[in-house]
Amino acid sequence: MDGSDENGSTTGERGAGDDVTTKEKTPSVDTESGDGADPTPAALAERVRAGDLRLYELESHADADTATAARRRLVGSHEHSAFDGPASALETVGDYSFPASAAEPNIENMTGAVQIPAGVVGPVEIHGDQLTGERYVPMATTEGALLASVNRGCATIDRAGGATARVLDAGMSRAPVFRVDGVAEAKALVAWASDNEDRLRSAAESTTSHGELESITPYVVGNNVFLRFTYDTKDAMGMNMATIATGEACDVVEAETDADLIALSGNLCTDKKPAAIDAIEGRGRTVAADVTLPRAVVTETLDTTPEAVAEINTRKNHVGSAKAGSLGFNAHVANTVAAIFLATGQDAAQVVEGANAITTAEVVDGDLYTSVTLASLEVGTVGGGTKLPTQSEGLDVLGVRGGGDPPGANADALAEATAVAALAGELSLLSALASRNLSDAHAQLGR
Amino acid sequence: MDGSDENGSTTGERGAGDDVTTKEKTPSVDTESGDGADPTPAALAERVRAGDLRLYELESHADADTATAARRRLVGSHEHSAFDGPASALETVGDYSFPASAAEPNIENMTGAVQIPAGVVGPVEIHGDQLTGERYVPMATTEGALLASVNRGCATIDRAGGATARVLDAGMSRAPVFRVDGVAEAKALVAWASDNEDRLRSAAESTTSHGELESITPYVVGNNVFLRFTYDTKDAMGMNMATIATGEACDVVEAETDADLIALSGNLCTDKKPAAIDAIEGRGRTVAADVTLPRAVVTETLDTTPEAVAEINTRKNHVGSAKAGSLGFNAHVANTVAAIFLATGQDAAQVVEGANAITTAEVVDGDLYTSVTLASLEVGTVGGGTKLPTQSEGLDVLGVRGGGDPPGANADALAEATAVAALAGELSLLSALASRNLSDAHAQLGR
Amino acid sequence: MDGSDENGSTTGERGAGDDVTTKEKTPSVDTESGDGADPTPAALAERVRAGDLRLYELESHADADTATAARRRLVGSHEHSAFDGPASALETVGDYSFPASAAEPNIENMTGAVQIPAGVVGPVEIHGDQLTGERYVPMATTEGALLASVNRGCATIDRAGGATARVLDAGMSRAPVFRVDGVAEAKALVAWASDNEDRLRSAAESTTSHGELESITPYVVGNNVFLRFTYDTKDAMGMNMATIATGEACDVVEAETDADLIALSGNLCTDKKPAAIDAIEGRGRTVAADVTLPRAVVTETLDTTPEAVAEINTRKNHVGSAKAGSLGFNAHVANTVAAIFLATGQDAAQVVEGANAITTAEVVDGDLYTSVTLASLEVGTVGGGTKLPTQSEGLDVLGVRGGGDPPGANADALAEATAVAALAGELSLLSALASRNLSDAHAQLGR
Amino acid sequence: MDGSDENGSTTGERGAGDDVTTKEKTPSVDTESGDGADPTPAALAERVRAGDLRLYELESHADADTATAARRRLVGSHEHSAFDGPASALETVGDYSFPASAAEPNIENMTGAVQIPAGVVGPVEIHGDQLTGERYVPMATTEGALLASVNRGCATIDRAGGATARVLDAGMSRAPVFRVDGVAEAKALVAWASDNEDRLRSAAESTTSHGELESITPYVVGNNVFLRFTYDTKDAMGMNMATIATGEACDVVEAETDADLIALSGNLCTDKKPAAIDAIEGRGRTVAADVTLPRAVVTETLDTTPEAVAEINTRKNHVGSAKAGSLGFNAHVANTVAAIFLATGQDAAQVVEGANAITTAEVVDGDLYTSVTLASLEVGTVGGGTKLPTQSEGLDVLGVRGGGDPPGANADALAEATAVAALAGELSLLSALASRNLSDAHAQLGR
Repeated sequence: MDGSDENGSTTGERGAGDDVTTKEKTPSVDTESGDGADPTPAALAERVRAGDLRLYELESHADADTATAARRRLVGSHEHSAFDGPASALETVGDYSFPASAAEPNIENMTGAVQIPAGVVGPVEIHGDQLTGERYVPMATTEGALLASVNRGCATIDRAGGATARVLDAGMSRAPVFRVDGVAEAKALVAWASDNEDRLRSAAESTTSHGELESITPYVVGNNVFLRFTYDTKDAMGMNMATIATGEACDVVEAETDADLIALSGNLCTDKKPAAIDAIEGRGRTVAADVTLPRAVVTETLDTTPEAVAEINTRKNHVGSAKAGSLGFNAHVANTVAAIFLATGQDAAQVVEGANAITTAEVVDGDLYTSVTLASLEVGTVGGGTKLPTQSEGLDVLGVRGGGDPPGANADALAEATAVAALAGELSLLSALASRNLSDAHAQLGR
Repeated sequence: MDGSDENGSTTGERGAGDDVTTKEKTPSVDTESGDGADPTPAALAERVRAGDLRLYELESHADADTATAARRRLVGSHEHSAFDGPASALETVGDYSFPASAAEPNIENMTGAVQIPAGVVGPVEIHGDQLTGERYVPMATTEGALLASVNRGCATIDRAGGATARVLDAGMSRAPVFRVDGVAEAKALVAWASDNEDRLRSAAESTTSHGELESITPYVVGNNVFLRFTYDTKDAMGMNMATIATGEACDVVEAETDADLIALSGNLCTDKKPAAIDAIEGRGRTVAADVTLPRAVVTETLDTTPEAVAEINTRKNHVGSAKAGSLGFNAHVANTVAAIFLATGQDAAQVVEGANAITTAEVVDGDLYTSVTLASLEVGTVGGGTKLPTQSEGLDVLGVRGGGDPPGANADALAEATAVAALAGELSLLSALASRNLSDAHAQLGR
Repeated sequence: MDGSDENGSTTGERGAGDDVTTKEKTPSVDTESGDGADPTPAALAERVRAGDLRLYELESHADADTATAARRRLVGSHEHSAFDGPASALETVGDYSFPASAAEPNIENMTGAVQIPAGVVGPVEIHGDQLTGERYVPMATTEGALLASVNRGCATIDRAGGATARVLDAGMSRAPVFRVDGVAEAKALVAWASDNEDRLRSAAESTTSHGELESITPYVVGNNVFLRFTYDTKDAMGMNMATIATGEACDVVEAETDADLIALSGNLCTDKKPAAIDAIEGRGRTVAADVTLPRAVVTETLDTTPEAVAEINTRKNHVGSAKAGSLGFNAHVANTVAAIFLATGQDAAQVVEGANAITTAEVVDGDLYTSVTLASLEVGTVGGGTKLPTQSEGLDVLGVRGGGDPPGANADALAEATAVAALAGELSLLSALASRNLSDAHAQLGR
Repeated sequence: MDGSDENGSTTGERGAGDDVTTKEKTPSVDTESGDGADPTPAALAERVRAGDLRLYELESHADADTATAARRRLVGSHEHSAFDGPASALETVGDYSFPASAAEPNIENMTGAVQIPAGVVGPVEIHGDQLTGERYVPMATTEGALLASVNRGCATIDRAGGATARVLDAGMSRAPVFRVDGVAEAKALVAWASDNEDRLRSAAESTTSHGELESITPYVVGNNVFLRFTYDTKDAMGMNMATIATGEACDVVEAETDADLIALSGNLCTDKKPAAIDAIEGRGRTVAADVTLPRAVVTETLDTTPEAVAEINTRKNHVGSAKAGSLGFNAHVANTVAAIFLATGQDAAQVVEGANAITTAEVVDGDLYTSVTLASLEVGTVGGGTKLPTQSEGLDVLGVRGGGDPPGANADALAEATAVAALAGELSLLSALASRNLSDAHAQLGR
């Protein structure tokens, strides 16, 4: 069964981001206009300006592409926008390559699309559980030098025979918060949840054909009880699946106990906020990659030494991050994560958790061992933005589009590729710093 | 002098992301081909496959658009990619709306562009120092329900007369790490840096026509000395300006003292990693927005009460985040930040720091006061991705494209708009949660 | 079976603190002195000065009290100490109330004892699972106003009928770090540990007659594998029991796999360092206490209002701590924890984890509900400092000395009492702040 | 003028701990008892039991020692305490070596004193700015093996010629939180505070003859404004001096602006809670110590290698702490800090901040360089517990009792000694771990 079935069957996976209210049904297109003539963008824009229609109702009165055109006109004629006029406003934003209706699960109030430069790095040899062999890795970014940097790292890794990658843990969590009367009731609720785990599991899993509840972990603060539900969501990133399933379980809690549900997300999930609980316990995939670079590769290709790279990693990524009170002990993992996320239709806001990574580097028998471990990489190959045309092409670059076989294999593979690319990025930046220092040293000696 | 001049004069602002090695000069296009015929994408792809050319050298042998086409073919014919064949690979990625050469400062190894659905929310009344009046706010996302949610918040804010926004602090930081002999030398270096602040300032500011050094803050860990340089970078996000300027200052340190520069970024900056130093001391813009919603607006429009919203904010955003060991005490600020970043050409990896936000909500005289404060929002209206066609149109929606008058005003304005939109997102989600709970309560009472 | 048996049977519980190397056997007293005359302190001190004996060997050449006297003389005659002379040095330190030999499990290089002023607060009504009824709570401190503050809180709680307390979780953890070849081997080791949990449990539990292994949680960073062993250590604080048991389990890991043990504590335990893992997952006892103060009690006794206390708690303990990047969302829980720890023989360095507490305050139907939840309170009623004379008297004040019935009950009771006293301290300080503000307000109005 | 004068002149330094309400005046001893006969402890206890007197009022009706005796009887006869009877209750607690009246600034509700075993380590050669030469270091603890461990480290350091220590920064902070109307007013208040820094300084410094205001740093969260006042408090730990001075400055803020003071401590200080702001910006003394151990010392004395110690430090103190979400990147600095704090009259609750330390270890030219940096060590040699008999003797061991010359020199010296002792503790534990591993390795090879 492929990812689109998974997607369809849960309904929620189609688009709703975390912590966002469920999307309301779009009313059907207005067919009451007497004359049958399609309204023009200009006419629609005028109706909005006149207060006759709301900005988000346009799709009910015209096809999706006409609606986006109407919005562009509207924005273009707004007093504070900086366009020459309604007709020329948002011109390139309006030049998108797919029917606007295809993006309905992904956005409201659509005006078109933003185009982010895309490219590839590699190919790089990956030794994963799900992904093996040489792969190009798709990335999209507006930040020059990034792909060049990661590409250089990939080439170096290839010279060393490729990098190993492993998904160490997988699970999407949702942690509702309940209000109880006090600490005695909190303890009782925790005990009740433990005693009734099967019932809560049944309720949660009744909402999904594929998701599986892995665990329910309780946390108490005074009269607040948080139950952190964690699910195996297979190839879906899984926020929506987890939210819907947890909602069903919460109904059981409220029906059977005196606890009041305060919020389906109590911020112990933790979604889209930097949080130690994710850095420690993981969320989405916990994935690591490593490589041992022979000394000759480091000295000849990277123009530095294993010792220099290890030293920089310690002073910058470990000591510097320690002093900064950081949850990210790496150089620029977020750059790689963000670029792959954009290229493959992931949720850009979850770059936040993607930055919870630790890079290590050490000299082993004269060679350079280096690794990167991403604690909470939230990725999917079905649902959300993965079905959009350019994004699904991004997944095709890696050959991981849609549902995997077995389920979860494609998302694991995407995580493995991301970890290897992140490792390449770390390696490249650290060695560039080391090489520059060596050059400086040489220059100084030459004086 | 406007922001684009600033951009040009520093060269670096054009594209290099943080913590990425400076982009090397692209060699000029290969004109040595004897016959003068332009190479075809297929021929170029073949040369790469044959090992005759490297993936990143294509632009030296053909115009940029041909090079991207060659790469698409190359990826399309790779054994592990999932395309039907080289000709049809990455078709929609290849359907971009600008000359590929325009993206050269933004990416290497380009294959085309990813299209992210874009839209607008608002208009919403903003009372900022730099931005006043009604504004549409551009957002791009693949996560359905997000714009609807923020839009609802904007409408509510408008009903209350608009939201206030203030940039509280601004400064882009870069913190190199130096190695010294020990703690005695570390203390001496700190003293030296303080005594020689003027010289360091001169060196740093010699590299930029607009940037100004605000401060140098020292941090010591054993034989590591970190000097955190913070700059006023006006309308530029400023990472590159700060990096180049700090590099020049580091040359002075190395020339005049025994300290050895280990890394131009020692992770106390902190760029693209979740870090308390950013959440506490700020980076980029520290910006806040707030609004007081009359009780009637809350009850009639949002179908809840000020008390319910305040309670949810406490249990979820404060207590939940506290228990999670979080640096983000908000519901989903990162969603709004990410969408505005994508729509306006910001660095997507800096969503990480954008999530360092605290939301407050309280009942004041029966009304609902709510605020959001973003500690480290790194935005610019010149340089980086802001010059790309669709992204600059995003800035035009707000009327903040390019350099501001006075310098910095446009980036401040973008920060104010982002804060107000984030506030709208928070308000919408919190009230939706509250409303749902009330509904549930009503349903239960009705039984 | 009482606590001293528990203590004796594990040997370790007698005194070794966390992260400290196991204490070596003290050689028996030197009986080789020919004439049978006991050496005088002055003579012993002279032998140390002459390099004939080492400072820590004195107990091998004299009884413990003579050894302490010798050390006092030695310190007193040291060139940089500020005593009038050897005879009068450390006079009051030397005036301790128990045979020095009684402290041998607790200290080396003993010179005497420091006297910390001790007192009691209460009695306060406690509704715990293990502790019920009115109790005096022993505290020792050098910080004036602390006991007065907590005592006032206790009186207020009593007026409201007492406070409820619950131990929500209990477990002492030890997390060794192993080095493996890389991420693939790391994943394999994690799987091996899961498959062999029974063997690891058997090994661990073979070292203790009472401790029980609750769980083994794996964490991986590159080629580092951390296994966090958590134990039910009953009435013992349990660091040593956990260390010894885990050491035995580590032997199994090393014998059966290729993993190398690097350190028996890999800092994921986490002992005596502020760490999110303790604040989130708990260590020692996770314990909470709460009380609802009728409005009249707040206004009449505390001279403030529930609303004012709740507001201060939000702005100070929640928002302030959030902005500070803190793991402690409370006012001064560490004060109470430290004072009770000193009075009852706990490990003073574990005040660090004791500060991981969250205080909540809210208005419920006009009354004030307030709670404090301590995530990681490491307490014991057997072993360590609990057997010292003054400290065991501290436990007697609460009636929780030695092993409980059932085992663990006394340590739970001590945790409950600590939580209630901490709650009293929070309540007192918050209301004092609120009252002062009200007074100021009145004063201002009076102008 | 020495420290005790400083102490007297500020009144506050005498005893009040942080975040505790100012101690109220003790009413003078009751002289109204008609017959002039001194009340007995038994009689006094009876009056308390009868509700005629309150527990804390005893000192008003008898001399301090009688009052403590009365309390011991009271506790001894309480139904839930575990004493044989009132007469024998708290016997050793009651056997203290100073007039109870001497402890009046330090405690209320006194019953006597807890005796903590005390000892010394060293002497160790210290190369500080304020402390030079060989010193014994006083420590008090109930945790066996601690002094042995630190002592071993001291001996090793001595063999390497001693350790260097430097105070890198000093300043005691207090951060009140004000409520303003919103973010616009918050920005205005921040500007006002900057414009009026001189007035705020004058007000603050008017309360102290020695303290100097170093800086006022503003932080804003919505309608909350925190002003972090930092003072040079010389030889006093300075919490009370800072509190009183800041209170005076707050009066100016409230008189001149519309801001309302909510709490004199808004938790951004941060006192007695683990907080990144202290770990980053420091509080009290930021102090570091380091030593380079020749390879031969490591191999011969510590039975391990520089490489092994460095590796353990990385895996445990850096990687392990990183994964734990910790602010303490060390092995057991809190143990040393706690023991010195107890021995010298420091505030035991501030061990919390003392644990914010980073340990580094690296191989330099075959030798072992190791350092420890304590970010926020709050120490004083005047005021608080430093005047108690046994504690002042502890300061005498180091020769740092009372006010220094120049002011601040003694507290600096105490900080230096603490850092060196902490370094010794780290070195000892890390090398013990390394040595054990080597032994294990040998044992395994021998099989």
